[in-house]
Amino acid sequence: MKNVVVTGVPRPPIEQLDKLASFGVATVHEALGRTGYLGPELRPIQRGARIAGSVVTALVWPGDNLMIHAAVEQCAPGDVLVVAPTSPCTDGYFGELLATSLAAHGVRGLVIDAGVRDTAELREMGFPVWSRHVSAQGTVKATAGAVNVPVVIGGQTVHAGSVVLADDDGVLIFPARDLPHAIEAANAREAEEQATREALAAGGLGLDRYNLRALLKNLGVEYVTYEEYHE
Amino acid sequence: MKNVVVTGVPRPPIEQLDKLASFGVATVHEALGRTGYLGPELRPIQRGARIAGSVVTALVWPGDNLMIHAAVEQCAPGDVLVVAPTSPCTDGYFGELLATSLAAHGVRGLVIDAGVRDTAELREMGFPVWSRHVSAQGTVKATAGAVNVPVVIGGQTVHAGSVVLADDDGVLIFPARDLPHAIEAANAREAEEQATREALAAGGLGLDRYNLRALLKNLGVEYVTYEEYHE
Amino acid sequence: MKNVVVTGVPRPPIEQLDKLASFGVATVHEALGRTGYLGPELRPIQRGARIAGSVVTALVWPGDNLMIHAAVEQCAPGDVLVVAPTSPCTDGYFGELLATSLAAHGVRGLVIDAGVRDTAELREMGFPVWSRHVSAQGTVKATAGAVNVPVVIGGQTVHAGSVVLADDDGVLIFPARDLPHAIEAANAREAEEQATREALAAGGLGLDRYNLRALLKNLGVEYVTYEEYHE
Amino acid sequence: MKNVVVTGVPRPPIEQLDKLASFGVATVHEALGRTGYLGPELRPIQRGARIAGSVVTALVWPGDNLMIHAAVEQCAPGDVLVVAPTSPCTDGYFGELLATSLAAHGVRGLVIDAGVRDTAELREMGFPVWSRHVSAQGTVKATAGAVNVPVVIGGQTVHAGSVVLADDDGVLIFPARDLPHAIEAANAREAEEQATREALAAGGLGLDRYNLRALLKNLGVEYVTYEEYHE
Amino acid sequence: MKNVVVTGVPRPPIEQLDKLASFGVATVHEALGRTGYLGPELRPIQRGARIAGSVVTALVWPGDNLMIHAAVEQCAPGDVLVVAPTSPCTDGYFGELLATSLAAHGVRGLVIDAGVRDTAELREMGFPVWSRHVSAQGTVKATAGAVNVPVVIGGQTVHAGSVVLADDDGVLIFPARDLPHAIEAANAREAEEQATREALAAGGLGLDRYNLRALLKNLGVEYVTYEEYHE
Amino acid sequence: MKNVVVTGVPRPPIEQLDKLASFGVATVHEALGRTGYLGPELRPIQRGARIAGSVVTALVWPGDNLMIHAAVEQCAPGDVLVVAPTSPCTDGYFGELLATSLAAHGVRGLVIDAGVRDTAELREMGFPVWSRHVSAQGTVKATAGAVNVPVVIGGQTVHAGSVVLADDDGVLIFPARDLPHAIEAANAREAEEQATREALAAGGLGLDRYNLRALLKNLGVEYVTYEEYHE
Repeated sequence: MKNVVVTGVPRPPIEQLDKLASFGVATVHEALGRTGYLGPELRPIQRGARIAGSVVTALVWPGDNLMIHAAVEQCAPGDVLVVAPTSPCTDGYFGELLATSLAAHGVRGLVIDAGVRDTAELREMGFPVWSRHVSAQGTVKATAGAVNVPVVIGGQTVHAGSVVLADDDGVLIFPARDLPHAIEAANAREAEEQATREALAAGGLGLDRYNLRALLKNLGVEYVTYEEYHE
Repeated sequence: MKNVVVTGVPRPPIEQLDKLASFGVATVHEALGRTGYLGPELRPIQRGARIAGSVVTALVWPGDNLMIHAAVEQCAPGDVLVVAPTSPCTDGYFGELLATSLAAHGVRGLVIDAGVRDTAELREMGFPVWSRHVSAQGTVKATAGAVNVPVVIGGQTVHAGSVVLADDDGVLIFPARDLPHAIEAANAREAEEQATREALAAGGLGLDRYNLRALLKNLGVEYVTYEEYHE
Repeated sequence: MKNVVVTGVPRPPIEQLDKLASFGVATVHEALGRTGYLGPELRPIQRGARIAGSVVTALVWPGDNLMIHAAVEQCAPGDVLVVAPTSPCTDGYFGELLATSLAAHGVRGLVIDAGVRDTAELREMGFPVWSRHVSAQGTVKATAGAVNVPVVIGGQTVHAGSVVLADDDGVLIFPARDLPHAIEAANAREAEEQATREALAAGGLGLDRYNLRALLKNLGVEYVTYEEYHE
Repeated sequence: MKNVVVTGVPRPPIEQLDKLASFGVATVHEALGRTGYLGPELRPIQRGARIAGSVVTALVWPGDNLMIHAAVEQCAPGDVLVVAPTSPCTDGYFGELLATSLAAHGVRGLVIDAGVRDTAELREMGFPVWSRHVSAQGTVKATAGAVNVPVVIGGQTVHAGSVVLADDDGVLIFPARDLPHAIEAANAREAEEQATREALAAGGLGLDRYNLRALLKNLGVEYVTYEEYHE
Repeated sequence: MKNVVVTGVPRPPIEQLDKLASFGVATVHEALGRTGYLGPELRPIQRGARIAGSVVTALVWPGDNLMIHAAVEQCAPGDVLVVAPTSPCTDGYFGELLATSLAAHGVRGLVIDAGVRDTAELREMGFPVWSRHVSAQGTVKATAGAVNVPVVIGGQTVHAGSVVLADDDGVLIFPARDLPHAIEAANAREAEEQATREALAAGGLGLDRYNLRALLKNLGVEYVTYEEYHE
Repeated sequence: MKNVVVTGVPRPPIEQLDKLASFGVATVHEALGRTGYLGPELRPIQRGARIAGSVVTALVWPGDNLMIHAAVEQCAPGDVLVVAPTSPCTDGYFGELLATSLAAHGVRGLVIDAGVRDTAELREMGFPVWSRHVSAQGTVKATAGAVNVPVVIGGQTVHAGSVVLADDDGVLIFPARDLPHAIEAANAREAEEQATREALAAGGLGLDRYNLRALLKNLGVEYVTYEEYHE
């Protein structure tokens, strides 16, 4: 691990981030060919929040939040701080004071593959957080790490300056160059979904809409009556 | 695993299901001699919902929701879809479109021993879901499974046409033939609990009400003062 | 395990407990030098509750709540019941009837390293609970345990008559003799945090406020530009 | 839960069980169309053992092994005892004394969805065990359960008198009526696997042997060179 | 947490520790009334080792093994080092070099509620270890902790100078003052177990030996034939 | 996810891989500045094996091993196959037949972030495997994935053509360009460790060797006698 703070990371345009935030994580994940989802372990501490932003990363030692402080200085309006520990840790790396600091710099939220605390206060402040744990146990400031280097969370490599989208379904991260395509594809998908939604709301079946009856037959799935099955 | 879709499953009477829904899962579980609880891992994605219905089952491959589409066609008003994977999977098998489809057929909710997505939308729609995971990761439609065959979730064998009751405490499933008895026994239990509640609210003790003092003595439990204990 | 019920446990003054309840768990945990936190696995079943009280302990057998009934009799106004099983158990040891009984004796809440049920009713009653599990599965009353002996939860030894503080961040327990110091130190910490909060809200950095720049340099953390990092 | 001990359960023929024991769990699982595997959580405490037998079930309360004692009396030579708790429990329900007792009645091993102890002694005795946990924590004998009723372990319903096969890959359970078919199908599968093994050992590819090249093409999988991929 | 190194801890007599090591963890746990077991999560990295010793404790920060080095100096022949982190950590705190150092001071083994590494080398050296994790990820030496203060592992408070016994079933820790009683009681238990073992090996039943038939009847357990059960 | 098979991946020199295999995972991890460890969840199914090789990756769908077959064709002598599922899966993707095939192509072992089966046979064959699960549950061949694209396992991004080293402590993966440095640094580290080992074996202390006494003092760690601590 190189102990560096990378400065001057290029960001995606904020107005595009704002457009992205009108779509849900599940929709954009599909639109992007199912890449970039951080997995089911990162959960929101609040309900109903959705944010899009530019990634600032912090790589931290277990039980040590020193590099979060170094990361705050690298944050700009529209950013989302993404924190990963070098090995699994439940500690509460982040609370209301750090949220106050991030909010003062225009940061839109926190994603952390570890613990947070002051959760009641964070909800009151309206500072959205996705974390793996909630824990009152604090951290020290003693060991080096890195800022804006790639980190890995939940099976995804996360780069500084990438795009992050988070809502009640979890967190999605993808390269900034895919942002225009993501918005376009999500728009297209929503249009298509709207047509499907109407068909299904009218009683139509996915079996017909997605042409699954032939597939079921090919796979050897048989229809039997309850009586046949139990005789 | 036989790849079949079982049709024409007999259902319990809807008016009895509606009566059942006036009791909580914990109460009915007790009333039935403590059988049929799917365990603490299946959690509601919403708060305060309670539904009773008739079970339609879908047995699905990990990462593949083909058979959920086959199951929708077998659903009728008053049903609850119960989905189990053949091996553990966190993927989001089910979202707002499938919920729209189920709602259009009068289905009352979903129980799934895997993941769901679009959770914010599902809560907005008022379509109640009990699941093991929340995940934005979608599924394919490629591998055969079964509909309305017995599945096992959380230590219980679940049969199509059985009764399901679900609330904030989790999910209970039991044979349709036990439904009249369940309602009667839950009624009786509630009456009894009401008397107990009043006695306890007035300061009475379970020790006296359940005759536990003699048991404690028989088991050799001794009372000692704080001073005796620490000398 | 000695099967005893210890009576006459001395309590901390209620008015001091009430003062303590104006501080959060994370704040008091820090103020006390980071001791006594029960860890991230004990979670509230409600949001936004905060209680302080005097500990009554119950040590119970897996699947058996007999000793909770014995513990109720030992409870007094201002107490919080703290229940630990002798080995891990998810069962629902506690529900709305026991909460009614505890509330009738002035008990402020429950902390249990196992499961609870009737969670919707408990929230409606406003009886706060921190638990490791939610489960409708009930318990028997057949095996001896103990009341007001030390129990261990989440890496902490918990003594009867100690102070418990619980909120959305979890549960903190510490000796009654430290209560005056805890209040004083939490007060001091809040004052200090208020100054920090204002500085950070005005855009100040933790790097400066906590003198971390020199530390980063000593640890060999280097600043490099995005271009330098990628060349 | 009905508290019954079911006696006189019919068993499959021992000589067929002995034949079955010449095949591995993975082979027979495939041969039976992938049904009956108890899942990856039940692990052997020893290496290299493989047993086949007739199932005797015990349904036990958490922390209580009373019904194991009742089950021993129902065991006959060629049986395997299969124990499930009514809710998850890590306790050591079973040790060297119970193994001595089972061995004296010709029982071939233990499968338990909970904990065991005396593991060094059990290995020395050569009494094979598959369990979810190892724990020195003992149990009481206080609460009723059942013997030879269906129990559920790891997603499978287990019936008394069914066939159990266990080795280093885990535990498989299936109906006695399928035993002749299982042996025949496993034999056929082994023959087929032997041909495949020889082809693969000679450098042949599964891609060709299973005709997967066309499938890959249909699914849109493209071949690109390392240089193309990185340009 | 007070950052202290406690020196001059009194030890139990080594010859008594050696006597204790002739009994298994499960036996002594029973003999002591089932107290002091560290639970099923602490597993040996080797098979067949059994050690008894006097406890030296180290309380360490996540990802930081500084205090283990401080603890080594406090170790004497016959000791076992017991390490607990302040919050959960999987890192490899300990490897072959530290084992060499401990062995040079006559230390008999390591118990650690975190990770170890160099496990192949540790097995070759014959230095026995019980740990929660195995991990190659190393630690830093930057944050204070404590030596020979009480630590909590797996639901037990562990004091310096207490007795530790560990084998394939896990780890047991109890006060030095109970050591003579533990040996005596384990002896008595073994004698009793030998008689039971002989009776069971001769085909006797626990049902008779422990007088469980009356209990089953009192609990309402009924015996029914297979035919009755299925009609 | 792009569904591609990347061909012609450049490999590191085999003789360097062979040199690397003389060092342990923990040693090389340290030598490389603690990067590339796949974490404590990937465990060997055998004891005492150590392999070094060149990475071939397969990205597979849950419950589907199609792409492993595509990957076999891309394997060359000295390779190690590294398999990751797109979402968590316990299924047994790999058994003795695939191992026979890989061995026939000179592949040195398997690393899989999912399940394997035929574990007894794999150990007998001497084909080493590191996996997250063992499961007899087989997979289908129905869904596209990729070969030799980057995959993420246990917090590390894994590239085709990288170096893998695995032993009883787990799995390490790093870029091929670091291989000469890794060997050199591991050599240097071993030399240094040998000196330390001898000093420690002679009774020397890490406290002195690593100059930790001053650090302890700076951190405020105090030495107190047992009597002082308990007064």
